[in-house]
Amino acid sequence: MGTEPSRVGVVGTGMIGTSVALALRARGVDVLLSDRDPAAVAMAADIGAGRPWNGAEAVDLAVVAVPPDHVAATIADVQRRGVAPVCTDVASVKVRPLVAAEERGCDLGAYVPGHPLAGRETSGPAAARADLFLGRPWAICPTAKTGPDAVAAVRALIGMCGANVVEVDAAAHDRAVALVSHAPHVTAAAVAARLTEAPDVALGLAGQGVRDVTRIAAGDPGLWMGILGNNPGPVADVLEAVAGDLSATARHLRALDTATTSPEHAHETPAESADRASGGVADLLRRGNTGRARIPGKHGGPQREFTVVPIVIGDKPGELGRIFAAAGEADVNIEDVALEHSPGLPAAVVQLYVKPESAAILTAALRENGFNVH
Amino acid sequence: MGTEPSRVGVVGTGMIGTSVALALRARGVDVLLSDRDPAAVAMAADIGAGRPWNGAEAVDLAVVAVPPDHVAATIADVQRRGVAPVCTDVASVKVRPLVAAEERGCDLGAYVPGHPLAGRETSGPAAARADLFLGRPWAICPTAKTGPDAVAAVRALIGMCGANVVEVDAAAHDRAVALVSHAPHVTAAAVAARLTEAPDVALGLAGQGVRDVTRIAAGDPGLWMGILGNNPGPVADVLEAVAGDLSATARHLRALDTATTSPEHAHETPAESADRASGGVADLLRRGNTGRARIPGKHGGPQREFTVVPIVIGDKPGELGRIFAAAGEADVNIEDVALEHSPGLPAAVVQLYVKPESAAILTAALRENGFNVH
Repeated sequence: MGTEPSRVGVVGTGMIGTSVALALRARGVDVLLSDRDPAAVAMAADIGAGRPWNGAEAVDLAVVAVPPDHVAATIADVQRRGVAPVCTDVASVKVRPLVAAEERGCDLGAYVPGHPLAGRETSGPAAARADLFLGRPWAICPTAKTGPDAVAAVRALIGMCGANVVEVDAAAHDRAVALVSHAPHVTAAAVAARLTEAPDVALGLAGQGVRDVTRIAAGDPGLWMGILGNNPGPVADVLEAVAGDLSATARHLRALDTATTSPEHAHETPAESADRASGGVADLLRRGNTGRARIPGKHGGPQREFTVVPIVIGDKPGELGRIFAAAGEADVNIEDVALEHSPGLPAAVVQLYVKPESAAILTAALRENGFNVH
Repeated sequence: MGTEPSRVGVVGTGMIGTSVALALRARGVDVLLSDRDPAAVAMAADIGAGRPWNGAEAVDLAVVAVPPDHVAATIADVQRRGVAPVCTDVASVKVRPLVAAEERGCDLGAYVPGHPLAGRETSGPAAARADLFLGRPWAICPTAKTGPDAVAAVRALIGMCGANVVEVDAAAHDRAVALVSHAPHVTAAAVAARLTEAPDVALGLAGQGVRDVTRIAAGDPGLWMGILGNNPGPVADVLEAVAGDLSATARHLRALDTATTSPEHAHETPAESADRASGGVADLLRRGNTGRARIPGKHGGPQREFTVVPIVIGDKPGELGRIFAAAGEADVNIEDVALEHSPGLPAAVVQLYVKPESAAILTAALRENGFNVH
């Protein structure tokens, strides 16, 4: 573990920085907050993430939670002011910020490159949560120059956030996140981009599958340009391979479509051509199964920890109010809410996430109040 | 609604067929079950989905829940036995089963092609759930030949399952599901396929994003071959467009990587080359935002169409109730709700999505009631 820091400075109170701050506050750490946007600091302080940092007060450790292009300059600034003996960052790429920090003459012995794998499709301090890192991987990329005390301090900080340390070389890190984060993000955007010109009826048929595939496509393009532009080679490698598989599958499907009338190759019978095309598509689906199965753990999120109570309501003012009033009277805390309603239809489905032991109490209370609980 | 059926036969007790049966049982319908696999019928009957169908007893409506390639033969069989005046199916493609039913001489007046958009990554009767269709779209594709009574009966059935009817031409349906279901499935498989050869450390860094993108890649390849092989042209069209966007993005990223040393085009300065490449990547990300925002429901449309009112509240029962009561009194309709709270901390952030013209009214009403609106 190393010595747990008792005072931490967070530079950059966006979603990730504020989540780190909240997690540390929950462990009793004195957290100092700064951001180039004073409104972001005010918001973060208001939700209990810490107190504003005048920039002069000394801390045990500084967490630099700014976009990749600004990491090196921010670390140089913190080190020049001499307010933190150890710095870490949370940027999604590691090689370029490390090279930039070296070029700026930063003290690399006191800088531990870090990256918590806990992005969300939302940004800003309002989207922060203390449990964001719970059970999630958090990469650190110490080099031969990094001081062991600095590594121990950052490991202790990550432990306080409830995350699991993954120590990995910076170049291997950047290739890994291209595979498990950056290329999936671009691919989600490419699937979502197809929907821009889709007829309304197609959107009306959207189910959970396409919602899941495209969820991260809602991410901030500016923020993602900062990530992709700092990891271009590894991301391009993966995208080319994915594009190759998709082009081949399209070709196989067209061959399948015409196999009975015109085999793709002259030496093939129609049945042979269809078999080969079909085999090509099935091969990708099977490789998809295999790759998917390698991702450790189950899906995270509230759906697993909480019980869902679904209620069909009329889509009019006051309905949600009555539901939550009934829940409050029954002394049941609503942990999360999902509201699904289809434009043009009078009904909506509210899904209330509650602790398993509260589900029966809530259901009874709502039915007593005349609600249609499913 | 038309006359609600009181006795329904379900042919094919896989995940979808059994879910239909469970939903109908919950509404008191007498459900008869059949499947070529007797164990699947026994399992479905065991979880309360109905009773075995000897195949001779007459029903009001038959739901054919078999793979696309078997739909026409199954409908022909049900009609030949004269046990159901109306048939519908639940296959994910509609043109080919319809053509096949016509070729087999089925009575098209008594067959309403249908498709509930409610797939899961799991299959078989054990994965069935009565609420699978709640609030979900369910396409029907009547033709000029379909009888109005048959359509009314199937609409009533869909209503009993809690789903929303979307009436659409079969060809338009198949193009739509290629966009919102089939091509996203293949793309998820292609992203997951990249993980088959990935080093362990890369898998260790997998976060929620890649889990969401690849969730549906766990689907049964055999089942999906039956879907993709029956919709080859529309799926190939979408896959080619996605592959094109991914190849172009890979090219832009490589250009960005080398722009400072060698511009992509002879007439460009390094800065111009980098700007053009960067613009290309950003354009895809922005189109991804736009397309994603068109998907109705949570995490889709509301964020773009509605204004967000964030409120910091104490994390205790009744707080949400008071907020919604205040909104109801101010006659403001809450379109969506996002609740962020961090276990162990006393505060939570509620984000209310409202029509832009309602934001100021709601903010004023909440502040009057002492809420901390940001």
